[in-house]
Amino acid sequence: MSEYKVVFHIDEINKLRLLLNNVGNLLNVADNKFCIEVVANSEAVKCYTKNQDADVDINIMDSLNQKGVKFVACNNALMGYDIKKDALPDFVDIVPAGVMELVKKQSEGYFYIKP
Amino acid sequence: MSEYKVVFHIDEINKLRLLLNNVGNLLNVADNKFCIEVVANSEAVKCYTKNQDADVDINIMDSLNQKGVKFVACNNALMGYDIKKDALPDFVDIVPAGVMELVKKQSEGYFYIKP
Amino acid sequence: MSEYKVVFHIDEINKLRLLLNNVGNLLNVADNKFCIEVVANSEAVKCYTKNQDADVDINIMDSLNQKGVKFVACNNALMGYDIKKDALPDFVDIVPAGVMELVKKQSEGYFYIKP
Repeated sequence: MSEYKVVFHIDEINKLRLLLNNVGNLLNVADNKFCIEVVANSEAVKCYTKNQDADVDINIMDSLNQKGVKFVACNNALMGYDIKKDALPDFVDIVPAGVMELVKKQSEGYFYIKP
Repeated sequence: MSEYKVVFHIDEINKLRLLLNNVGNLLNVADNKFCIEVVANSEAVKCYTKNQDADVDINIMDSLNQKGVKFVACNNALMGYDIKKDALPDFVDIVPAGVMELVKKQSEGYFYIKP
Repeated sequence: MSEYKVVFHIDEINKLRLLLNNVGNLLNVADNKFCIEVVANSEAVKCYTKNQDADVDINIMDSLNQKGVKFVACNNALMGYDIKKDALPDFVDIVPAGVMELVKKQSEGYFYIKP
């Protein structure tokens, strides 16, 4: 059994379903252990906001989070779109700069994938 | 002479020509040896299906394959789009999960590029 | 204080502002040193051409360049779009193949980010 660290990058809202499929497919690969983080910056932080349309996606993220997937939002982007912390689900972590998080994770041995 | 390993990721059909240009330009760089793999997942697996419109692209891929470029299709995506193995050119290899292949290649020292 | 090397890849004109925001946000992260290179290939080399519409962007790039960010254009793409060297700002460096530059930088320990 190998252990892989993977950071997924999303900065476009319309890539969310593609990204969630990617993450789900990765977790379904048997006989491996994964350490997965999703970093959303730019307009993609809106994917985390709770609203009727996105409920299905939020539920998928919640269930992935319960399987160990970390979801992260860029604070620069949250401020840019005037999204408050309490508009986000509890499972979302906020980092000061999404792009720095992408750099930091890669420096920790995470592999970068941009769906 | 250096040897470089590169994995290209494609998940949008309309990025195919861009990707093939990238691969071709890389192979044209003199004095280097390349180990190149193209991983198609999501809708991009349709790029591999044989049909009149795509004949030019299939020919380009075939010729790149003869120069050593490996073309890979995600089986999750093939099933999602109901594409059978015999609809694909012989030079295409099928992997269970494209996203896992992207991780595996990077763990083997391949550099990731997403055109 | 850590030092990070990062290569940003752009191949679509409409991703320019997003990319420049990413680079700016990264530079704003305190207590770190960055070695940043932006590689433009395909149609994105047009982002470097001086024209009225793009003046704001050229100014932003110029100011980022003065903070140490390197901007690079793919010569294959410049030739494809018939863009001459003198149509580019002085701060832009030309490389024979953008995709090779992306490979080379990663082989030198740069982390890849595609906004």
